[in-house]
Amino acid sequence: MTFKAKIRVTLRPSILDPQGKATHHALHQLGFHGVSDVRMGKYIELTLDAASVEDARAVVAEAGAKLLSNAVMEDVSFDLEVVAS
Amino acid sequence: MTFKAKIRVTLRPSILDPQGKATHHALHQLGFHGVSDVRMGKYIELTLDAASVEDARAVVAEAGAKLLSNAVMEDVSFDLEVVAS
Repeated sequence: MTFKAKIRVTLRPSILDPQGKATHHALHQLGFHGVSDVRMGKYIELTLDAASVEDARAVVAEAGAKLLSNAVMEDVSFDLEVVAS
Repeated sequence: MTFKAKIRVTLRPSILDPQGKATHHALHQLGFHGVSDVRMGKYIELTLDAASVEDARAVVAEAGAKLLSNAVMEDVSFDLEVVAS
């Protein structure tokens, strides 16, 4: 089966986010005064083959923990969809 | 009402993604041989106040188009959730 994993890597709430702060400031300058907070993260789409949903989930979780994120500063979450069976 | 917008900014399919290619290569080196494609994007969480869901949607779409993405190379999609009403 072929899966597409949609992975979100976000900074933990306690970690300062200067890029988000700069984006927030720029949005205010552009007139977006309703925006009260901005947090920047990474979005990764993985296409992978696996025998089952459980296998795919395990692979994506391991890849997320080992390579795609920094466990000290970041959280990982993902959704999985079947693109071919 | 207070909303949280979860915004994904992705490279258009026709645009080369060297960061994704490098990540794909690194995953193979680590033994993740089932992974066939990796695309890197940005994930942005905006907290904003707006009078209605429609207003919030319009603000996020405009912010996404004006500041958060490059319309030539990137696509923007988002989900909206109500965090306080």
